[in-house]
Amino acid sequence: MTESYDLAVIGSGPGGYVAGIRAAQQGLKTAVIEKDRLGGVCLNWGCIPTKALLRDAELFESFQDAAAHGFSLGKVGFDAAKIVARSRQVADKMNRGVAALFKKYKVTHIAGTAKLLGAGRVQVTGAAGEAATVQAKDLLIATGARPRALAGYPVDGHTVITYRHALELTQFPKRLLIVGAGAIGVEFAYYFSTFGVEVTLVEMLPQLLPSEDEEIAAALLRAFRKRGVRCHPGTTVKAFKAQPGRVEAILSAAAGGGADTPEVWDVALLAVGMEANTEHLGLEAAGVALERGFIRTDGRMRTTAEHVYAIGDVAGRQLLAHKASAEAEAAVGAIAGHAHPALDYGRIPACTYCRPQVASIGLTEQQCKAQGLKYRVGRFPYAASGKANAIEHTEGLVKLIFGEPHGQVLGAHLIGAEATELIAELGLAMRLEATHEEILATIHAHPTLSEMVFEATGVAFGSSANL
Amino acid sequence: MTESYDLAVIGSGPGGYVAGIRAAQQGLKTAVIEKDRLGGVCLNWGCIPTKALLRDAELFESFQDAAAHGFSLGKVGFDAAKIVARSRQVADKMNRGVAALFKKYKVTHIAGTAKLLGAGRVQVTGAAGEAATVQAKDLLIATGARPRALAGYPVDGHTVITYRHALELTQFPKRLLIVGAGAIGVEFAYYFSTFGVEVTLVEMLPQLLPSEDEEIAAALLRAFRKRGVRCHPGTTVKAFKAQPGRVEAILSAAAGGGADTPEVWDVALLAVGMEANTEHLGLEAAGVALERGFIRTDGRMRTTAEHVYAIGDVAGRQLLAHKASAEAEAAVGAIAGHAHPALDYGRIPACTYCRPQVASIGLTEQQCKAQGLKYRVGRFPYAASGKANAIEHTEGLVKLIFGEPHGQVLGAHLIGAEATELIAELGLAMRLEATHEEILATIHAHPTLSEMVFEATGVAFGSSANL
Repeated sequence: MTESYDLAVIGSGPGGYVAGIRAAQQGLKTAVIEKDRLGGVCLNWGCIPTKALLRDAELFESFQDAAAHGFSLGKVGFDAAKIVARSRQVADKMNRGVAALFKKYKVTHIAGTAKLLGAGRVQVTGAAGEAATVQAKDLLIATGARPRALAGYPVDGHTVITYRHALELTQFPKRLLIVGAGAIGVEFAYYFSTFGVEVTLVEMLPQLLPSEDEEIAAALLRAFRKRGVRCHPGTTVKAFKAQPGRVEAILSAAAGGGADTPEVWDVALLAVGMEANTEHLGLEAAGVALERGFIRTDGRMRTTAEHVYAIGDVAGRQLLAHKASAEAEAAVGAIAGHAHPALDYGRIPACTYCRPQVASIGLTEQQCKAQGLKYRVGRFPYAASGKANAIEHTEGLVKLIFGEPHGQVLGAHLIGAEATELIAELGLAMRLEATHEEILATIHAHPTLSEMVFEATGVAFGSSANL
Repeated sequence: MTESYDLAVIGSGPGGYVAGIRAAQQGLKTAVIEKDRLGGVCLNWGCIPTKALLRDAELFESFQDAAAHGFSLGKVGFDAAKIVARSRQVADKMNRGVAALFKKYKVTHIAGTAKLLGAGRVQVTGAAGEAATVQAKDLLIATGARPRALAGYPVDGHTVITYRHALELTQFPKRLLIVGAGAIGVEFAYYFSTFGVEVTLVEMLPQLLPSEDEEIAAALLRAFRKRGVRCHPGTTVKAFKAQPGRVEAILSAAAGGGADTPEVWDVALLAVGMEANTEHLGLEAAGVALERGFIRTDGRMRTTAEHVYAIGDVAGRQLLAHKASAEAEAAVGAIAGHAHPALDYGRIPACTYCRPQVASIGLTEQQCKAQGLKYRVGRFPYAASGKANAIEHTEGLVKLIFGEPHGQVLGAHLIGAEATELIAELGLAMRLEATHEEILATIHAHPTLSEMVFEATGVAFGSSANL
């Protein structure tokens, strides 16, 4: 028997599950095909469980400061198994939440692995090998991405691991090498180092968080070094050799000068980027073209095959959950025939949840320069914020870039406590093309960290009373 | 000798010090007269030191949850003297910051008590009784407010106290009666109860935080009761009797039904509102009129006397630091002859830093009803937020009110973790008259608490994929 739907979605991450629900809300008969757990990587093995782990790292860190705050604690210890267990419970709860939402909105969940057969048909193979066919007017591919495999780095899940294994590590290594200082590498560097692991963080590009503003990346580097994380930006890993429980490699600085002597770690965590899950989907036969490994889409998330759409990591650009959800909305709008404002990929916030947190949106100062834009910058340090002092998080900076002569926000780059929440106001500001005058005419509550957005704007235009 | 200035400001709180610096930045020769510490109540005895205390209460609370997170802490103790000392250090640092800013911007700080003599002259009496005269083209009164004295409640600083004493309490009482559940009463109820004090919180009006949305106040009541705070909204205090170390009173519910038997506490904290500091300033002789106890001002902060302005608490309306700073900007704009957008008192956020935090801006649902507005409401609970689950702060609600038919934000009412930061985006939304469509077209980072603003908007308009 072939089930027929208006829309079949392949993958149930923050792209797929949102698409499924939004389609159902708009009256489409919708199925979501998922071979693993509902919620995808984000919910099960990414955004959500890592934030639980990082929260616990922050808690643990606060215990170290307790005495300065007037508290006496006895001997402080931690149980990594419990920390991981709580993280898993949070992921499980959110996973059940997606199932409940599917039920509420009458989205059919089909367990199995999907393969496009052409003409709106999808073959779904269940865990036991049983196959069924699903028919749908429109198809939406939201199969996500996975850690990029690197030749010469054999991932075994014990000595050479990816984030997927790091998430469930209940016995922490003494010495950990993290290869790649994007968001994942940086977050795990914070997490493990907070619990006493000796972390070496290596990044081939010249800065930590290579896509962030240089000044913010430099501030993060200082903060991490102060915390005792050995950071090596602009460094490649050579002569990588792994055997059970032992990793040996040479860290070779691009600038030269290193002794190029091998060092030894207990575990290596690879965080060197992601690659799209495009295999075994029958894409080629269905006429769905790739572009540099990702599915090629147009502004409405249409692939090169009629009635086939793609969103999220598999469609490339920023590999971010909220970008996937926004694309879900755009794709469903296109499928349901509703008008939808075009996605502006230049206004998508990016967050890294280490401490200090990093959050940004829009252009970096380097991009402004490269594009020959006229701009002015306002900086306000956390150290000058009353709230930051009260909560003793004085490490950090709000850096805002305004276009000349209109004073619109070109970019916002934050490092420090709650930066990942403060960025929301700047997202709205960019969306609405707010000018500095409008930000300054907005009364910000005192004492809050968000006042720093107001103050940094004032600094840029000579009107801050607090710096 | 009479010193001459373009502008003399009386008082150096968040109204006065901001006015002084902003005036100097705009080229005015400016003096700020202050009889006590630079920074006023906000910085020395209000916003800032309380946030330090509350931060420590939150820390202490996190120790209680430590075991559930996989941590072992041993015996946990606290030293109230150290908690208070840190709070004082933070206030001191911010106080020195104002002095440094005055120096940087060449604002003259005159220590002493001011009295208007008319015709732009101000008499300043120093601590030793020495008098001097200051002459200025324009005068700005920013003398603030103080706790309202209540007949029959003799404040002695030990058994019957105000926030001023509560801030420095290093020996916590066993049983504390707090009279008044505005922001101050509620924050201290959270603070003391977290450290094990048996707190009774009484409010004459029918809800805690009487100016907040009823639904939010009800949520706070539930949260506080769950924490063990004895809350009595709609209740008056009768037969109040205080002797050293012992307070006796009858709590009488407006709804009746109470047994009207006296109860006993060790200390009573009065938080029943503020009154303006208008005495001994020579206001009457200078022709500065009052209105219901506050200085009457027009939209540009002008009083009834020519060249005399007033801002902040002494000028009434919302008694909030950021309102005072915004009025400082408006007043200096008027004095310097610059155009300045009129202050909109309907778009001033209000924050209460208890846990769960409360923050709001704009109209409550009750006000919308009373004004006969057409509106729709979107609610998103913290319990459905991935980030809130990850950080285990699932208590709370984002409630947004949108006008019909345009979908502009009429009001935003938040209770829960970081509500006081999340409100910033809604302030900008209201300032820019953003509609629901614009909020929904703004990509919010995942996973953040700020996503709940997006989701609550979606709930109001039937497009949330997460509820």
